[in-house]
Amino acid sequence: MTQPQTAFRSRCSIARTLDVLGDKWTLLVVRDLMWHGKHTFQELQASEEHIAANLLSERLKRLMGLGLITKEAYQDRPVRYRYTLTDQGRSLEPVLLQIMGWGHVHLGGGLYDPQTGKTVAEAGQLP
Amino acid sequence: MTQPQTAFRSRCSIARTLDVLGDKWTLLVVRDLMWHGKHTFQELQASEEHIAANLLSERLKRLMGLGLITKEAYQDRPVRYRYTLTDQGRSLEPVLLQIMGWGHVHLGGGLYDPQTGKTVAEAGQLP
Repeated sequence: MTQPQTAFRSRCSIARTLDVLGDKWTLLVVRDLMWHGKHTFQELQASEEHIAANLLSERLKRLMGLGLITKEAYQDRPVRYRYTLTDQGRSLEPVLLQIMGWGHVHLGGGLYDPQTGKTVAEAGQLP
Repeated sequence: MTQPQTAFRSRCSIARTLDVLGDKWTLLVVRDLMWHGKHTFQELQASEEHIAANLLSERLKRLMGLGLITKEAYQDRPVRYRYTLTDQGRSLEPVLLQIMGWGHVHLGGGLYDPQTGKTVAEAGQLP
């Protein structure tokens, strides 16, 4: 995998993952590409959390630099790009599922089922 | 669980978890409390990643506010505190393991085994 431009803080695998993905936005972009069929800048920006354009642009560049997503032009004049997860990007799915499960139990968030594409438990409907 | 002071960005469980834990440091503090027997401010600050004192102080306060850790004084004059994960804090272990596994495979970090307390695969020793 492409190494990030800055050196890792330590040999710890958790620290290294947080070095490249540890913020409030990057994994939401991965979530939308992984599960929600969003592939263009406009689609990604339209998500419920309303990521700012400059943050989305920076995160997409970083994910490309890491080899986790690719982009291809799907339109000229103006050129527009479609972003897709690579196999390495898709390998983040178990991480997303674990984080989602924790947020569902402890923070009352919804539970999305990748098999059906439906959110099976909404916030406030916990047992 | 105690709700954070700021409102969540959305109903998404991933977004909610990142709202409260999505940064480069919080889960490293949880890691040290969970696995490495570090319980005092000084011990936590001495980790390889060298968290700044003001960041560590802020993260400990936030984790206490969320009910994920507790503190108790173990010494007077000067008073010193010992920090411990609550059961809710310990429930982050599967999240840590998943993040560690990803960083091991994709970023060449070490692999810690909570059962033995040893790092079984160091960076650069991947198959």
